[in-house]
Amino acid sequence: MAANSVLLDFSIEPARIIDELSRKDIVKVIKENIEKYFGNLKMIYDMLVNDGYLCILSDNTGVIFSLRFYNEGLITLNIEYFKKENQPQKISFESSRLLENTLVKDLSLLHGQSLPTLSRGPIIRFFQTSDERIIEYDIDKVLFDKHSEFQKIQIVHSKQLGNMLILDELQNIAEADLIYTETLMQRGKENYSGKEICILGGGDGALLYELLKENPKHVVMLEIDDLVMEACNKHMSSICGDVLEVRQRENYEIVIGDCMVWLEKYIKEGKKFDYVFGDLTDIPISDTPTGEIWDFIRKILESSFKVLKPTGKFMTHGNGASCPESLEMYEEQLKKLKPVVKFTRDTAFIPSFMENWIFYQVGLADQ
Amino acid sequence: MAANSVLLDFSIEPARIIDELSRKDIVKVIKENIEKYFGNLKMIYDMLVNDGYLCILSDNTGVIFSLRFYNEGLITLNIEYFKKENQPQKISFESSRLLENTLVKDLSLLHGQSLPTLSRGPIIRFFQTSDERIIEYDIDKVLFDKHSEFQKIQIVHSKQLGNMLILDELQNIAEADLIYTETLMQRGKENYSGKEICILGGGDGALLYELLKENPKHVVMLEIDDLVMEACNKHMSSICGDVLEVRQRENYEIVIGDCMVWLEKYIKEGKKFDYVFGDLTDIPISDTPTGEIWDFIRKILESSFKVLKPTGKFMTHGNGASCPESLEMYEEQLKKLKPVVKFTRDTAFIPSFMENWIFYQVGLADQ
Repeated sequence: MAANSVLLDFSIEPARIIDELSRKDIVKVIKENIEKYFGNLKMIYDMLVNDGYLCILSDNTGVIFSLRFYNEGLITLNIEYFKKENQPQKISFESSRLLENTLVKDLSLLHGQSLPTLSRGPIIRFFQTSDERIIEYDIDKVLFDKHSEFQKIQIVHSKQLGNMLILDELQNIAEADLIYTETLMQRGKENYSGKEICILGGGDGALLYELLKENPKHVVMLEIDDLVMEACNKHMSSICGDVLEVRQRENYEIVIGDCMVWLEKYIKEGKKFDYVFGDLTDIPISDTPTGEIWDFIRKILESSFKVLKPTGKFMTHGNGASCPESLEMYEEQLKKLKPVVKFTRDTAFIPSFMENWIFYQVGLADQ
Repeated sequence: MAANSVLLDFSIEPARIIDELSRKDIVKVIKENIEKYFGNLKMIYDMLVNDGYLCILSDNTGVIFSLRFYNEGLITLNIEYFKKENQPQKISFESSRLLENTLVKDLSLLHGQSLPTLSRGPIIRFFQTSDERIIEYDIDKVLFDKHSEFQKIQIVHSKQLGNMLILDELQNIAEADLIYTETLMQRGKENYSGKEICILGGGDGALLYELLKENPKHVVMLEIDDLVMEACNKHMSSICGDVLEVRQRENYEIVIGDCMVWLEKYIKEGKKFDYVFGDLTDIPISDTPTGEIWDFIRKILESSFKVLKPTGKFMTHGNGASCPESLEMYEEQLKKLKPVVKFTRDTAFIPSFMENWIFYQVGLADQ
């Protein structure tokens, strides 16, 4: 079952909708055209709003039409109705495009657009890209849906991408995303054989699983959220193998805890790594590099370099290629870091993000 | 400028919204929670609908909240307001997720979802995949927008994909889509040197342009819509070079006309080709292979084999990999074709479609 929302947009010269008579005429033409698809409509409510006019129409089967005029020159039409699993749509995308084209023509509008039908039901299907565009995924099942102390954790199944981990309604990793892990670790370009590695975060287990294939001496993974690991162990084993099931072997150990606390401990002990992976939160999209998250990002970078050998590297994911401002801000932080570092970046198209993603490799400048 | 639509969905046990007192309580809690973000709301209208209940609320700045209860157990909330170019959003995606999470918790709902904000304005940004999922593109400019006698033709600019040709509101080809043309023509697998080729459709010019790089003897392209070629010549020259500007040279010719008429003419004349490309409409998504479009597809296939040499091949695009039923139906048509044919298929991820696409190579079975 789903509530279907069919949305149409139009633009128009503002004068034509501010004038009451002209607007009434437009409403009449729109109503008549909708009636070709839905039969007789009745107007159930209308009112002037601060920035325009709103009217609500309905057919006799429970379809609600919300028609809104914005004085600056926009008209929006929402057609909304309930649809059971196997019922046909009450208006197809083809018909809504036809309705749109007829209205643009009959009313000499400046522009029209039909959005593909939004099917709003119990299965989460809509996510956004890093530049806040909506993407609908072909998700047909929810496999896991719980809140931990830290976040909302969901694992869903996509027909194209396999199982997908969703944290706080952001796509995290899917079974089709091997390229994500391989670009993060720069497979084929970095040599992990015999190395000591620390992963900050990484709860989906994919990075640990892939690193272990490269014969490192030891990997320690510091993950705060046990429930993420439990969920991924159950539903994402194609990307994490059994590393979240058997959490310690001679060449790795998973520690459940706050990575900052553990980094402090390593700094005190004088423990050193060849690689530290920042597999935590994304770089935030914000206007200035201030606030808690940016403080956290700086602190992570500083502490990581305190536990890295002079030849060591800090490897991390950045953000979408469509967010250059956010990436620049991150690079500004890198440039201000003490000790002085140099960095390279790599890009990969990540299937489950549906966009290009940037990854950073950071080392000491004097190496 | 844009009309912003922020959509939230919830599911709930049906009994809780059919019962009037319980429903009133839920409305009260939702209203109070929205007020944390928008200040005092007034209810401007409410009514029982066939399949549930609808109420309209508003704040004092023109934000309209449509809250709808569907008796089968869904609640939808639409928050809609006008936003000028540089104004901030009235509610961020983060806040709407927070609102959603609070409501799910406070009201013990079964599920909640926040859709990324839909920005509805004069620039067309929303298209659909072959399985009818909505995708928002990073389109920032409309370069061309006209109706021809045959279709609505738009060329828009996407930050990631370059210029994109849109026909009747379907993504057609973008500057980033070389892989589309290369998979259609099976570059590196087929040898076009010295061959005679016929393109049915292909108005964007990309296929002709790429084929000419492979030293064919002659290519004839049969395109019905001159306005598509005019638009692409102006705005898509990175994919079509100057072939739409200079429409005839010794090794190619573009004919403006109905490809069926020309195929009939070639059949009468006994003209034969090494390759025929079907670069026309996609295979339709329909329940049965009937209707005008399927008749057209069958007719194209039959006629093409009448103008192909015995060793010749018919090359075409199919549909999205997410539409196996539609692809199967097409393959059924191929299997019924006289003369008997054999076919291979290839798949490529097409950047501007944001999905995997299937391409067919069809030849005579006895070759």
